Parts: sequence; structure tokens; C-alpha cells
Amino acid sequence: MSKVYYPYSEFKSDLKVLVQKIDKEFDAIIPIARGGLSIAQMLGEYYDLREVYAINTIGYNDTQKLDEVKVFNIPDLQDAKTVLIVDDIVDSGDTLVEVLKVLQKQYPEVTFYSATVFYKPTACIEPTWWVKEPKGWIEFFWSEDLKS
Amino acid sequence: MSKVYYPYSEFKSDLKVLVQKIDKEFDAIIPIARGGLSIAQMLGEYYDLREVYAINTIGYNDTQKLDEVKVFNIPDLQDAKTVLIVDDIVDSGDTLVEVLKVLQKQYPEVTFYSATVFYKPTACIEPTWWVKEPKGWIEFFWSEDLKS
Repeated sequence: MSKVYYPYSEFKSDLKVLVQKIDKEFDAIIPIARGGLSIAQMLGEYYDLREVYAINTIGYNDTQKLDEVKVFNIPDLQDAKTVLIVDDIVDSGDTLVEVLKVLQKQYPEVTFYSATVFYKPTACIEPTWWVKEPKGWIEFFWSEDLKS
Repeated sequence: MSKVYYPYSEFKSDLKVLVQKIDKEFDAIIPIARGGLSIAQMLGEYYDLREVYAINTIGYNDTQKLDEVKVFNIPDLQDAKTVLIVDDIVDSGDTLVEVLKVLQKQYPEVTFYSATVFYKPTACIEPTWWVKEPKGWIEFFWSEDLKS
């Protein structure tokens, strides 16, 4: 698959598109770490929401396609009614599906939405809001810019 | 105090300086949300560390100088020996002091270091590594760039 560098300037433009699409309000934003961290920081500032609580996932097998996703560092959502989960990309969809499953089980009274920049239509789940399809393997600025 | 816009390009340069200063290795990076989220994402990628676990703080009084800081969503550090706490700025230092206090109490066997981009010499604590002093009120790109 071809590699496509994704600079901050494009990220900023895409987040402006994303916030135009998002037509709900939230009590908290949950970034899936690490991919969703920068997005969550910018959306938290945009919506003036201090309630940005990260969650972690790890695949059972680190070297191959991840069949099983473990979710941990689950934030305290006892005061939240509506929550936005954010990540950089929904690729297979396995991570988002598992995060939603774990959160909905622990917080059945909370309504969860999801937002990503990239979404692959072959994924097993579609985020509530997304901006575009990836055209190749995305090399995000946060992965690349300290190397050069 | 004069406002100083802090663009992504400068942030990237400053993080390159920061990683040159950092002369330890870590098992985990803990961003203080929201300020440390983007830094932690980039450092996590740079050090190839998936263990990026955010922590939250809130002041007891949201509208004035915060006298008391509550720390919550404390991550699971049971497998970590050395941990880097990151934030955008150490201003008064109250937040970093309280985060360190809470983490050291819960994980007395863990060694904690800290890194920020900005540090005010009038703060009550100096991060282990930092890049520069703020010359005015910093308007970070993550706060500003979706507004325009």
C-alpha cells in the first residue's frame, strides 16, 4: 500500500470539516490512545470541554493483525450522559467496536457517539461522523514530524 | 499580559529540542489532560511507546486561581518502573505538584520524571526537562486553529 504523509495543515482543515458535521453536544470526549489524543485536545478546546478522558486499548498479539482488543484505563463517566469517542482512523473497526462494547456495558445509561478523521468503508463499524477515506497507508504528522 | 500565538511549526521545533534534552528511558508516558495530550502522542510515537496513559485534573474553583487540584482517572501503572509525565506548561506548578503527589503515593516504587514545553521560573516546581520560558500568555495552536 502506498504511504501518504498527512501534515498538520491538512489535519487542521479536516477537523474544521469534522466539527461542521458534528451536530450533537457532549459531556465528555474520550480519545482512544494514542491515535485520538491530538484530535481530542483540539475538539476539547473547540467545544470548551475540560472533560477529555483518554482510554487505552491493546491487541493481544502485537505483531500481526489484532484479533482481540483489550480495553483498559476506562475513565470515570458517572456524570456524563452523552459522550464522544474519537480516534484518528477506523480501519478494521475492531478497536472502536470493542471500546464501545466495554463502555456501553459499564455505562448503559450513557449515549455514545464516535468521530474520526479517516474511515475505511470495509470496516465492521462506521463512526457517527468522519471526514474521508484513506488513500493509502496514512503517515500521520504526529508519527513523522519528530523524526526528520 | 500580551498574548503570544504558538503555532504547530514552533511546537514541532520545540519538541525536537525537548527530545534532545531527555536522557532517560520510560515504560510509560502520562499526559496531564488536556494540555499534555498532543505532546504525549508525539513523544509516544517518537519513543515507540504504546503506553501513553492520560490523567485528569480539575481545580476546585473553575473561575479563579486554582488553590486545590483534584487528580482523577489515575492510570494503571502496575507494570511500569519509570514514567514520564508531560504537560504543555508549568505555570504556577500546582497541577504538576499534585499529580506527582498522587502518583507517588499510589505507586511508591515508580520513578517519575516530568517534561514540558514551557516553564515559568516562578513556579513551585521545575520539570525535569523543559524547553523555554513563556513570553506572555501562550495561545496554543490546539486552542486557536479550529476557531479561524
